[in-house]
Amino acid sequence: MSMLVVGSLAFDTIETPYGRKEKVLGGSATHFSYSASYLTDVALVGVVGKDFPPEHIELYKNKGIDISGIEHSQGDTFNWSGRYQGDMNDAETLEVNLNVLENFQPKLSPMHLKRRWVFLANGDPKTQLNVAEQMKDAQFIVADTMNLWIQIMRDDLETLFRKINGAVMNDSEARMFTGAETIVGAARKMLTYGLDLIVIKKGEHGALAMTPDYTVVIPAYPTERVIDPTGAGDAFAGGTFGYLALCDELTPGTLRKALRYGTVCASFQVEGFGLERHLEIGRGDIERRLIEFESML
Amino acid sequence: MSMLVVGSLAFDTIETPYGRKEKVLGGSATHFSYSASYLTDVALVGVVGKDFPPEHIELYKNKGIDISGIEHSQGDTFNWSGRYQGDMNDAETLEVNLNVLENFQPKLSPMHLKRRWVFLANGDPKTQLNVAEQMKDAQFIVADTMNLWIQIMRDDLETLFRKINGAVMNDSEARMFTGAETIVGAARKMLTYGLDLIVIKKGEHGALAMTPDYTVVIPAYPTERVIDPTGAGDAFAGGTFGYLALCDELTPGTLRKALRYGTVCASFQVEGFGLERHLEIGRGDIERRLIEFESML
Repeated sequence: MSMLVVGSLAFDTIETPYGRKEKVLGGSATHFSYSASYLTDVALVGVVGKDFPPEHIELYKNKGIDISGIEHSQGDTFNWSGRYQGDMNDAETLEVNLNVLENFQPKLSPMHLKRRWVFLANGDPKTQLNVAEQMKDAQFIVADTMNLWIQIMRDDLETLFRKINGAVMNDSEARMFTGAETIVGAARKMLTYGLDLIVIKKGEHGALAMTPDYTVVIPAYPTERVIDPTGAGDAFAGGTFGYLALCDELTPGTLRKALRYGTVCASFQVEGFGLERHLEIGRGDIERRLIEFESML
Repeated sequence: MSMLVVGSLAFDTIETPYGRKEKVLGGSATHFSYSASYLTDVALVGVVGKDFPPEHIELYKNKGIDISGIEHSQGDTFNWSGRYQGDMNDAETLEVNLNVLENFQPKLSPMHLKRRWVFLANGDPKTQLNVAEQMKDAQFIVADTMNLWIQIMRDDLETLFRKINGAVMNDSEARMFTGAETIVGAARKMLTYGLDLIVIKKGEHGALAMTPDYTVVIPAYPTERVIDPTGAGDAFAGGTFGYLALCDELTPGTLRKALRYGTVCASFQVEGFGLERHLEIGRGDIERRLIEFESML
C-alpha cells in the first residue's frame, strides 16, 4: 500500500571518528523515505530552500519517491551540524539553522490525502497534529518526536498521541516523557494515550514494540563499524513502517517482520555517512541481509 | 548430560533502590548452578567456611545439585557487599573479604572428572586453568571472568582461553580485553584464541554469541522491574550452558534455544534479591516464560 511522510529535509554537516562530511542530504523525512522506499510506495512532503540543488531532488526520484509534495521556498534549506564522539550514541549539536523549516505549513494534495499509512517525522507537534487532522481516511498514523518537544511542548504531544495510532521514541525520550524506570514501563504508559502501537528504539541495542495485546523485542544487527549514526532511527522507522504499509495490516506477524526490515535498513544506514550506503545498495541487498539477520535470531 | 561448575560460593549483602538484604546466599557458582539445574544434572565444586549454615546447603540439595564437591574449610565464607544505584547496570563494591576463597584449590573426584560440560565461574584464572587441565575428557569447557583479572592477570587469561572451548564476558570486559570498539569486533578477536564459542552479555540489552561459523543475537526479556541484578550474568550463563549440556551439542539450533533459556533464567534472577525468585518457581515456570518470550521474538 502507500505511505505519506511529512517532515524535515536538510543539509547535514557531520563529524564522526571516521571523518567529516559537509552539507550532505539529510533530514528525518529524507532518511525515513529512503528506507521505506525499499518496501512501499512513498510520497514525501517537506520544504527546501533556494539553495537546494537539483541533484538532491534526483536522489529522491532515483528511489521512486514521489516528490510532488516538496515545496521550494525562498530562503535557505534547514541545516544541522553535529559531532559524534565516544560510543557514538548521542550527537553533540554544533549548529542548527531552521531557515525555511521555521514557517513550514505542509500542503497536502488530493493524492496525499488518499495515503493510508502516514509517518510524521520528528518535528513541531502542532504541525504534526495539523497533518494528522487532515488525514481523515488514513489507516494508521504514526509520529516520531524528540527530547526538545517533550520539554517545551508536552501538552501538544499528549494531544497528538491521543489522535493518532502509533508513536516512535528512543529509550531516553520514552522514559523522559512517561517518567517510567524501564522501557517496558514506558511503553505501557504510552499505550494509555490510546495508541495501537509504541515502538521504543534502543539504538545499537535493538528495539521493543508494544501493542495493547502483545509485545515484540528485537536485537540490533551486529554491526562491526558504525561510520555515522545520523538517521539510523529514521531508517529503522522507515523499514518498519514501510513494511507495515506494504502489508497494510498490524498483526504480531507483520510487526515482527517489519522490525526486522527496520533493523536491516538501519544497519546499512550506519555503514556510511548520511545516505552513502543506500546509494550503493539495491532491494536485493536488503533481502540478503534480512536472511542473514534472521539466521542469527 | 552432566555439568560441573567450579567457583565461588558467598554471602552477599546487597543494597538496591528496592531494599537491603544481609548475608544472602550468593557467589557466581551458586547462581550459575541454580539456573543450570533447571536443565541438566549439576555438580558443584567450591569452598565455604565454618560460618556457612546447613540451611544453605539444603538450598542446593533442594534443586538436586550434587554438593559432594563443596569443601568445608576453617575460616569464614567469602563475602561481598555491594550497592546498585541509578540504572542498576553496575554494582558499587562496598566490601570484599576473600576469606576461605583465598587459598581455594578445587579438588575433583572421579565423578567430577567424568563430567562432559564444565563451567569455570568467575575467579582466579590460574585456578580456572588448573581445573581445565584436569578435565581431560570434557566435551566443552567454558570460563567466565571479570575486569579485575583482565587488568592483573591478562597473560593467564590468554593461556586459559587457548586451552578451553568457550568464554563468557560482559560487553565492557570484552572490549577491554580485546581493545575492539564494537562487541562484534570483540567477539571476532576472542575467537582468534581458538575458542569454539564466545558469549558477550549486554545485561538489559541481551547478548551476542559467536562461533567461527555463525553468530546468534538475542534481546533481553523485557523486565518491568529489576529488584536486584546480582547474579543475572551467572543465571544467564547457567540457563545457556545448562541447555547446551542437556543437548550435549553446540549447533546453531541448540545455541539459539540455549540463549533463550539463559535469558529466561536471568529474567527470574533479577525479579528478587539473590536467589529469592528461584525459591518460588519451578521448572514449569521456566517453560511458560520461555514460550512467552519466544512469542515476542
